[in-house]
Amino acid sequence: MRTVHAYAAPSATEPLVPTTIERRDVGPSDVLIAIRYAGVCHSDIHTVRGDWGRIAYPQVVGHEIVGEVVEVGAEVTKHAVGDRVGVGCMVNSCRECENCKAGMENYCLKGNTQTYAARDRDGSITQGGYSTHIVVDEDFVLKVPAAIPYEAAAPLLCAGITTYSPLAHWNAGPGKRVAVVGLGGLGHMAVKIAAAMGAEVTVLSQTLSKRDDGLSFGATGYYATNDDATWGELRNSFDLIINTVSAPIDMRKYLSLLALDGTFVSVGAPPEPLPVHVFTLFGNRRSFAGSSIGSIGETQEMLDFCAEHGIAPEIELISADQINDAYERVLASDVRYRFVIDAETLAT
Amino acid sequence: MRTVHAYAAPSATEPLVPTTIERRDVGPSDVLIAIRYAGVCHSDIHTVRGDWGRIAYPQVVGHEIVGEVVEVGAEVTKHAVGDRVGVGCMVNSCRECENCKAGMENYCLKGNTQTYAARDRDGSITQGGYSTHIVVDEDFVLKVPAAIPYEAAAPLLCAGITTYSPLAHWNAGPGKRVAVVGLGGLGHMAVKIAAAMGAEVTVLSQTLSKRDDGLSFGATGYYATNDDATWGELRNSFDLIINTVSAPIDMRKYLSLLALDGTFVSVGAPPEPLPVHVFTLFGNRRSFAGSSIGSIGETQEMLDFCAEHGIAPEIELISADQINDAYERVLASDVRYRFVIDAETLAT
Repeated sequence: MRTVHAYAAPSATEPLVPTTIERRDVGPSDVLIAIRYAGVCHSDIHTVRGDWGRIAYPQVVGHEIVGEVVEVGAEVTKHAVGDRVGVGCMVNSCRECENCKAGMENYCLKGNTQTYAARDRDGSITQGGYSTHIVVDEDFVLKVPAAIPYEAAAPLLCAGITTYSPLAHWNAGPGKRVAVVGLGGLGHMAVKIAAAMGAEVTVLSQTLSKRDDGLSFGATGYYATNDDATWGELRNSFDLIINTVSAPIDMRKYLSLLALDGTFVSVGAPPEPLPVHVFTLFGNRRSFAGSSIGSIGETQEMLDFCAEHGIAPEIELISADQINDAYERVLASDVRYRFVIDAETLAT
Repeated sequence: MRTVHAYAAPSATEPLVPTTIERRDVGPSDVLIAIRYAGVCHSDIHTVRGDWGRIAYPQVVGHEIVGEVVEVGAEVTKHAVGDRVGVGCMVNSCRECENCKAGMENYCLKGNTQTYAARDRDGSITQGGYSTHIVVDEDFVLKVPAAIPYEAAAPLLCAGITTYSPLAHWNAGPGKRVAVVGLGGLGHMAVKIAAAMGAEVTVLSQTLSKRDDGLSFGATGYYATNDDATWGELRNSFDLIINTVSAPIDMRKYLSLLALDGTFVSVGAPPEPLPVHVFTLFGNRRSFAGSSIGSIGETQEMLDFCAEHGIAPEIELISADQINDAYERVLASDVRYRFVIDAETLAT
């Protein structure tokens, strides 16, 4: 065991505080990573505040992690000391189910082991990336290409893969009309990635306040969802809609924007069920789907794609003592577009 | 104009009665069909009773029509006098929209012209197949292969194509695990077609009362949805679920039966919106889709497929004076599996 610095939530209602946590010894297939940067995801806030169910405290969150390999287990072959690596939303899976065997660990039928607030194999609760070090099985560690700026790489491990995976799966590319709902951490990555894939990208945001940003990220259309005219104008217009918003939305309106065989994919997670009118699905043979992060293979593919296309998230670098303020700003949608913690500042 | 015999609903609350209606003159691209058989679809009942909105009365319904061509317009090239033909749920479409141009008239963006209770191009209201004759544009008339028994061909024009289209589109075939929800008029065709396509077919019905039938139609599994054990046993089991039930269903339960990348397709039309939990869609990257009848091209393909594979619906032949009783039996689910009206009995 090794004691390392971290920032943890002491309870659902208190601010995060500096602390120390224990990391397990480096096992034969483990990699010890000195974390350099950790992204702040909205999920982190939902988790520590108990929005998605009760958790044990203190809890360290963070699942957008990049850093340097500083030690490897005896049987590790994929990574070496000095490598620049990343860890995303999961650190293990059952490896035996149909989905794991198909290389889709993110859909592990027994539930993959999430990077934080999950029961690990040894019975402990996983602790996330707001920390100076982490020990992860080599199979769940990604290679981060040198072409991606170090601090900007972190958000790719959740915001990047969560949007890349459905865009790739539903064939965003030349000739495809893609809409992105919400221009936040996930949405702005969806726009950049879809545009790089060659799709025609439209942003659907509550207002036009981020329009210039959206167009600079590669969108060619930008519409306000609080403008009634939007719904008529865009009816039957899109082959694929990626919804990054977790608030409840009017599915009838959004589904009506899909063209023949179009799919609305939610990566945002509204906690309440959404009413769906089957008659709206009949029109244009529409589909409503969900997508949850991406597999390890897809995540590596996404990192390589971003490196090749020069894509990186827009970030605001913060120090550890700014995390609680950053949470308030995330909740107020006052971030363009992702906070990233400089892990050096966690060490003191 | 030509006066022909028919059975019509005088109002939403009265039984159907014998009457006469006018059919238009045979235009240059029209075909006059002497109807031989007309299927009784649950939609007919919903329509005449006003369940799907107010309609004008008297109204003749019926959109599962087979008969013989007795006259053709000057420009007709696809059909000839004496041909055995069929007409399904639509008799025209705009022919100009993106979907029509793609050969998907059933998804006409201006709305296709339904066979009954719809506004036709000349301003009249379309009158359906419980009638001795009908005049239809040749492009919306199908060829009925001789290998399909005449009276059994009728239900293929709605029940057949409505299930064939999603089975074909979502690639039911060898290695695919398909579930069919409901074993009625549509459901029993879905089982026969999916089995003929080579898929592994399971029926999900409220009880096991029709189990022997289901297995004889080609299903290899048959489960009662009123047995709680069904839901646990079949979790993550299906690549495709075809829902033929129009009553509200618990989407969380049904979606949980889908395996990785599985799709739940509703061809049944619950009038109320169904609550969908996005977290259930996240698991296995599931999709919830709708499908509405099929294109004219697909309908011909389906008829040829059924002829080739020796597939026909199970029918109970009735005379015109049994229609009202048949309606009550459809509502009581007391039909195995489709009533077909002998149109000769409409003529008197």
